[in-house]
Amino acid sequence: MKGDKNVDIQALKDIANKLRIDSIVATNASKSGHPTSCASMAEIMSVLFFHTMRYKISAPRDASADRFILSKGHAAPILYAAWAEAGLFPVEELKNLRKLDSDLEGHPTPRLNFVDVGTGSLGQGLAVAAGMAYVGKYFDQAPYRVYCLVGDGEAAEGSIWESLHFASHYKLDNLVVIFDVNRLGQSEPTSLQHQLDVYDSRMKAFGLHSLVVDGHDVSELVKAFDEAASVSGRPTAIIAKTFKGKNFPGIEDLENWHGKALGAEGEKVIKHLQSQIKNNTITLKPRAPLSEAPRVHIADITLSSPPQYSAGELVATRLAYGTALKKIADTNMRVIALDGDTKNSTFSDKLRNAYPDRYIECFIAEQNLVGVATGAACRDRAVVFVSTFAAFFTRTFDQIRMGAISQSNINLAGSHCGVSIGEDGPSQMGLEDLALFRAVPTATVFYPSDAVSTERAVELAANTRGICYIRTSRPNTAILYPNDEVFKVGQAKIVRQSGKDRVLLIGAGITLHECLLAADKLKTEGIEARVLDPFTIKPLDEAAIQQHAKACGGRVVVVEDHYQAGGLGEAVLSALALQRDVITQHVCVREVPRSGPPAALLDKFGISAPHIRNAAHLVLKA
Amino acid sequence: MKGDKNVDIQALKDIANKLRIDSIVATNASKSGHPTSCASMAEIMSVLFFHTMRYKISAPRDASADRFILSKGHAAPILYAAWAEAGLFPVEELKNLRKLDSDLEGHPTPRLNFVDVGTGSLGQGLAVAAGMAYVGKYFDQAPYRVYCLVGDGEAAEGSIWESLHFASHYKLDNLVVIFDVNRLGQSEPTSLQHQLDVYDSRMKAFGLHSLVVDGHDVSELVKAFDEAASVSGRPTAIIAKTFKGKNFPGIEDLENWHGKALGAEGEKVIKHLQSQIKNNTITLKPRAPLSEAPRVHIADITLSSPPQYSAGELVATRLAYGTALKKIADTNMRVIALDGDTKNSTFSDKLRNAYPDRYIECFIAEQNLVGVATGAACRDRAVVFVSTFAAFFTRTFDQIRMGAISQSNINLAGSHCGVSIGEDGPSQMGLEDLALFRAVPTATVFYPSDAVSTERAVELAANTRGICYIRTSRPNTAILYPNDEVFKVGQAKIVRQSGKDRVLLIGAGITLHECLLAADKLKTEGIEARVLDPFTIKPLDEAAIQQHAKACGGRVVVVEDHYQAGGLGEAVLSALALQRDVITQHVCVREVPRSGPPAALLDKFGISAPHIRNAAHLVLKA
Repeated sequence: MKGDKNVDIQALKDIANKLRIDSIVATNASKSGHPTSCASMAEIMSVLFFHTMRYKISAPRDASADRFILSKGHAAPILYAAWAEAGLFPVEELKNLRKLDSDLEGHPTPRLNFVDVGTGSLGQGLAVAAGMAYVGKYFDQAPYRVYCLVGDGEAAEGSIWESLHFASHYKLDNLVVIFDVNRLGQSEPTSLQHQLDVYDSRMKAFGLHSLVVDGHDVSELVKAFDEAASVSGRPTAIIAKTFKGKNFPGIEDLENWHGKALGAEGEKVIKHLQSQIKNNTITLKPRAPLSEAPRVHIADITLSSPPQYSAGELVATRLAYGTALKKIADTNMRVIALDGDTKNSTFSDKLRNAYPDRYIECFIAEQNLVGVATGAACRDRAVVFVSTFAAFFTRTFDQIRMGAISQSNINLAGSHCGVSIGEDGPSQMGLEDLALFRAVPTATVFYPSDAVSTERAVELAANTRGICYIRTSRPNTAILYPNDEVFKVGQAKIVRQSGKDRVLLIGAGITLHECLLAADKLKTEGIEARVLDPFTIKPLDEAAIQQHAKACGGRVVVVEDHYQAGGLGEAVLSALALQRDVITQHVCVREVPRSGPPAALLDKFGISAPHIRNAAHLVLKA
Repeated sequence: MKGDKNVDIQALKDIANKLRIDSIVATNASKSGHPTSCASMAEIMSVLFFHTMRYKISAPRDASADRFILSKGHAAPILYAAWAEAGLFPVEELKNLRKLDSDLEGHPTPRLNFVDVGTGSLGQGLAVAAGMAYVGKYFDQAPYRVYCLVGDGEAAEGSIWESLHFASHYKLDNLVVIFDVNRLGQSEPTSLQHQLDVYDSRMKAFGLHSLVVDGHDVSELVKAFDEAASVSGRPTAIIAKTFKGKNFPGIEDLENWHGKALGAEGEKVIKHLQSQIKNNTITLKPRAPLSEAPRVHIADITLSSPPQYSAGELVATRLAYGTALKKIADTNMRVIALDGDTKNSTFSDKLRNAYPDRYIECFIAEQNLVGVATGAACRDRAVVFVSTFAAFFTRTFDQIRMGAISQSNINLAGSHCGVSIGEDGPSQMGLEDLALFRAVPTATVFYPSDAVSTERAVELAANTRGICYIRTSRPNTAILYPNDEVFKVGQAKIVRQSGKDRVLLIGAGITLHECLLAADKLKTEGIEARVLDPFTIKPLDEAAIQQHAKACGGRVVVVEDHYQAGGLGEAVLSALALQRDVITQHVCVREVPRSGPPAALLDKFGISAPHIRNAAHLVLKA
C-alpha cells in the first residue's frame, strides 16, 4: 500500500460524506438536481481533490495544475462542493445552486473559474481530457496529469470509445479515466449494470491499463491513483464499483431517484451522514503542482508571407486553406492541426509535412476529433485548427454546441461544401453546414471566395475568440482579389458595380463566381448588376447589404451552394427584415442532390449562372 | 468444412476477380471512385452474393430476403457489380457509374431498388443493420439474416461501437458484421493496421462471436458464414484480413491509391485478373429466402380516441406526445418507440408501459438510436417513433442528414426545447433543433403549441413520409384548441384576431402563449394584435403568413424559444422574402443562456410577453 501510511484515510472518508451532505443541501435549496449521482462518486472526489491531484486553490486554471473533467456534468453539485470545501469559495454559496444570479449552474460551465469546459451532454468529457493530456505530454511536456470522471450510463456513447482508442493509440499515460459504475441510468438500470468484468475486458482490449476497485473504499482509490501514476505508455482506467445514492438510507441503489432533490427525505439522510463523520474540520490541503508549465504565446498570429497569386490563376480555396495553415504555423509554434484521415483532401497535410509534430491524426472519429481540439485549446495552450469535409461536421454538432457553452476557441475548416464537389454524391456534400454554424452563438463563419481571402480568413480565425468556421470548396476558382487586399470580420466586398445597378447579386464561394457570370450575361441584356461577397456569413455585414440593396432599387438575389434553410440566404433575409421595399430571390439547393459533374450539378440543382440570371429577371419583374 | 463439398470454390474465386474487373472498368469510365477499396472485399462479396445470402433478383427489397448493408459506401462499384453479375441489370450499365442520368451514384442510395439506405458517411451502416436485425428477430420473427460490411477505417467511429454493444445486448444472432481490414485508410494506414488480434479481442469484449479469417480465401469465408448461421444468442463478427487493391499488381497494399481510378494502369491489371479466371460464365444463382416474412400494414394510422382535454387544463406537450404515442400504438401493431434512457422525461414510457415488446431501449447512444430507427423503418416494416431531448438530436445530425438521402421514414420527437426548461441549464436546452431539421430536405417539422395539436401532430407524423420531427416543451401550457379541431400539415391557425389588427404576432410552443399574453397587454394600450400558430414550421403555411401579415399592415413580430439562425423566425422571413411593405421583428434567444427558473429565463433571454410587446411597439414605429 505505497504511500498509504501518510494518508489520513478517515479524513478522506469524512470529506466524502461532507461532500454528500453539501450535494443534498444544494439540491434541496434548488429543489432540483442529481444528489444520488453525486453520492456514488463522493469518495472518488474526496481522494482526487484532497489527496491525489496537484493544483492551486489560488489559481484554479493554472497551466501547471492537474486537470479534472467531470464528464457526467449532472453531478455538478459535488464538483462545486469539492472546490468549496477545498477553500475556493464559501460552502454557504452552494445554496445558490441553479439560481439565475449564480454561476453554480445545473451543469458546469466555464463561467466558473475552476471549470475548463461545459459538460452535461454526455460522453464528451473524455475527448476533451484526451486533448489536454496530448498537449501536456507532447507540447507542454509538463508533469501535470488529467483526470476524467465518466458515468456508466454515458459509457454507452460511442464518443467515449473513440476517445479511449485515441488515448491508447497516443500512449497518454498522463490520463486517468475513472468510470463511476453506479449501475443505474435515468430511467432504468444501465445495460451492463455491475458487470465490472465486462468494463475491465473492454478497457484492456482498448489498450488501457485497467483496474477494478470498490469506489467507496478510499484506501483502494488512493492505491489505484498511485498505481496509475506509475504506469508508463498507457492511459489508466479505474473502474469503480459504486452505488447511486450511496449512504442515503432508503434511497441507495434504488430506481426512480435519478435527478431528484431529496426534499423532506433530506434531513434524515443528512443526519445519517453526519453520524458517519468523525471530524467535521477539513485540514487536508491540495498538493502543489510539481513544476511550472511552459509559458505560451498564442496572440497576434500572422501569415509568414502574404498571399502570392497571380490574376487569373485557378486555385481551390481548400488548397489555399492548407497553404495558409502552414504559413501561420511558421510564425507561431503553438499553431497545431487535427484531421480525421482527410488531410490529403482538406490540405491540412501542408502543416503536417512542414511540422509533423504539430499535427494530430485523429482518424475517422469526428466526435473525438472536435473534442480533442477543444481540450487542446483549453487554458490557451494552443491555436487549434481542425479540418474534415464540411458534411462530416454534422457528426459533431453536439460537440460544437457544447463548445459554445464551453467558451471554446477552436477553428474548424470544412472542405467539399455543396453540390460543386461533383461525382461523389450527396453523402459527401456539405449542404447544411452554414445552418449548423450560424446556429452556434459564439461562432464566426468565414466563407471565402478565392485563395487570397481564404488565406486571410485563416489568419483572422487564428486571432478571433470563439468558434471559427471556414467553409472551403473543392473546385479550382479564379483569384478575385489583389494579394494585398485587407479583409476584416464582418466586412463585405463589392466585387462588381456600376452607377446604374438595378439588382444586387450576393454569392459566396462557387456561387460568387456564378454571380459574376450571371452579371456578364445580364449586362448583355442591358441590366447592370452589383455583386457582393459577404466574406463572413456570421457576423454578416448587414449595413453593407442594406445599403447596396437600396442602391440597387431594393432588388436582391442571393445564391448559395447549400440547402434553403439557415444559410447565407436566410442570413441576408434577417439583415433585411426591417427594410421596406426590398425584395429577395433566394437561389439554393432545394432537394437531395445526386452524383454528376460539378458544372452539371450546379445547373441541375438550380444554382448556376443561368438560374441566377433568371432569378434576377424575376425579381426585376416583381 | 461443413457444406464445403457442395460449394464451387473456383467459381466463387472467379466471380471475385470478375467483380474486381467490373469495379476497375466502372471507375475508369467515371474517372473517379474507389477501385482499391472494392478489391479488398471482392471475395467477401462473391461468397455473400453467390453462396451465402438468400434473396430474390426479381424483388431485391423483398421483405423475406436477407439484407446487405455496405457501410463503407465508397465501395459502391463492387456492390453494383455484384447485383449486375447476379442478373439484376446488364453489366454494361456499370460504365454509367457516377453519371448524372444514372442511379449508379458515387455512393449507394435507395434510388436503386436494391439499396435500403444511403451510405457514404462512415460508421453508420451497422446501426441500420442492427435495426433490421432487431425487427427480423423480434417483430417479423422471420429467418432472414442481416449482413453488414464495415471498413476498418470506419471502425474508428464511435457509432460502430454503440451498435456492436446494442447488437450484443439484444442477442441479435441474425446479424453478421464483416470487418474488411485492408490496413489502409484514405491518407495513411489505419491506427490498428493488421492487428487482427486487437479487433478480435474487442469484439469478444463487446460480446460478439468473433472469428478472424483470410478475407481473400473463399473457402474460409464460406465456412465462417456457415459458422455464423449456427451461433445462437450473439451476433457474429467476421474479421477479414484483406489487402487494399488485392490482385492489382503494383498497387496492392500500397498507400496513395485511395479513391483513385486506375486510369492507364487499368488495362494491365485487368489482364492480370482475367488470367486468374478459369471460367468467365457465372452459373451460380442466389438461394431463395427460407420463408415469407409476415405481411405488415402501416398506413392510415389513427389515434384510438380523440384528444380529451378540458379548456383551461395545463398539460405539457411532451406529456401529450406520450399519450398520443400510446394511442396510435393501440390501433396499429407495428407502431414502435425507441428512446435513449430519457423515456420518463419524453414520456415515450407511455407506449412502453402499455406495450413493452414494442419499445426498444437504446440507452445513452443517440447515434445508434437514430440508426436503429432507420433500419427498423426500412422496407416499411414498422412505424418508428424516436424520442430524446431536442438538444441531443444534434448528436445525430449526420444520421438524420443521411436519413434524408436514404428516403427514410422515421419520426423523431425532441422534448425539452429552449430556455423554458429552466434550471438544468444550456447543455440540456434544444436551441438549434429547428435549424437542424429545417435543413433536412425531406423533413416535416411539427411544433405544436398545446396538447390537442400535439396529439394530432403525432397522428399526422405517423402517416407522413420522410423524416418527421415533433418539437415538444417541458412546461405545462394551456389547452388552446377544442378536442375536435382538425389539423393539417402546412396549415396555420389564427388563435386571436379582430377587425382592427395592427400587428401580426407569430409564436409556437411556449412563445405562442407569450404572444397571447403580449396581445392582452397591447390591447390595454389600444393596439389589437393578431396571433398565428404555424403548427408546422416545415412546410410553413406561407400563404397564411403573407395574407395575415398584409391584413395587419405589414407588421410582423415572430418569437421563438430558439437561437436566431435557421428557426421559425428565418422561416417566416423566407415566406415574406418577396413581399414589399412587410417588416418583421425577430424575437429569439441571442446568446448562450444559463440556469434559472423558466419564467425568469424567458424574460432574461428576451422572449417573454413584455419583450414581444416591446417588439410590437418597435415594428409599429418603424
